[in-house]
Amino acid sequence: MSDYEELMISSKTIYQGRIINLRVDEVSLPDGKSTNREVVEHAGAVAVVPLNEKGELLLVRQYRYAVGKNLLEVPAGKLNPGEDYASCAGRELTEETGYEAGNLKHLLSFYSTPGFTNEQIHLFLATDLILKKQNLDDDEFIDVETVSLKQALGMVLSGEICDAKSVAGILTTLNLQREI
Amino acid sequence: MSDYEELMISSKTIYQGRIINLRVDEVSLPDGKSTNREVVEHAGAVAVVPLNEKGELLLVRQYRYAVGKNLLEVPAGKLNPGEDYASCAGRELTEETGYEAGNLKHLLSFYSTPGFTNEQIHLFLATDLILKKQNLDDDEFIDVETVSLKQALGMVLSGEICDAKSVAGILTTLNLQREI
Repeated sequence: MSDYEELMISSKTIYQGRIINLRVDEVSLPDGKSTNREVVEHAGAVAVVPLNEKGELLLVRQYRYAVGKNLLEVPAGKLNPGEDYASCAGRELTEETGYEAGNLKHLLSFYSTPGFTNEQIHLFLATDLILKKQNLDDDEFIDVETVSLKQALGMVLSGEICDAKSVAGILTTLNLQREI
Repeated sequence: MSDYEELMISSKTIYQGRIINLRVDEVSLPDGKSTNREVVEHAGAVAVVPLNEKGELLLVRQYRYAVGKNLLEVPAGKLNPGEDYASCAGRELTEETGYEAGNLKHLLSFYSTPGFTNEQIHLFLATDLILKKQNLDDDEFIDVETVSLKQALGMVLSGEICDAKSVAGILTTLNLQREI
């Protein structure tokens, strides 16, 4: 296995924002040439597949301004500074759906799109759900919808569920159930 | 189903680059308040799961500067202006692996991380592979590795394969094979 590491020659901060920062680095390539790499910095996020005792998933529908659509997704949110992944997963689940997870199992961690961002998403399965109280952020407007795992698979394959973390979460949960 | 559409009040272009642009928009929220939304604009991409006659996947290992690691991924690349998805999938497969696809099947299209970017990835299954010639971009340094679909699933679950499009591509292909 080759190591094609690229080394930073210089770095320029373009933007420092609320959710993301942007920098553009000049890097040296393995052949000695150089190029620019655009890097969107993100603190990382969690996503949660909440599975109730009937084998149904709790999904959240919300407007995603970047893509200009209402999307149906698994609950998710950004890590606070220093927050551990499981705590964040439990917190975001309760904030967005009103349910607390009696049990949280780490499934996968993956980079959302490593060509231009370091965002890593930590995916959890939440079971033993207990109803508490929804508590949205000031700029969050979310509806909760319940679908069976089979329906969710159909919605992935039809494109109705169409964001990477939800696709990965639903297919991983389905794979887990088939293995059991 | 509620429609929580957010409407643009004003838009500021922060950066226009090679792979991405960045703009920050002021938007009106459903409750009449306003907030800022950071949007990373991307032309869209394809990803290809290349499955040979032995049931093995061709994967590519390359250094991803944004995450500072060599990652093992399904072949993928950015859409050229006006390029149709299947042509792009065929082109990227040949450029990165040297193989031409006799058959390309669209599996899914998904947003990589709709909280801050409009990047959409169109995922294809490539079969009937014919060896031609690898033809990398000037700043691409890639090794091709062959693993069975079962090994690939193990690598997803262990975290060795850890980017969203590869996770989604491998799990979708596995689901398809189980259905056949």
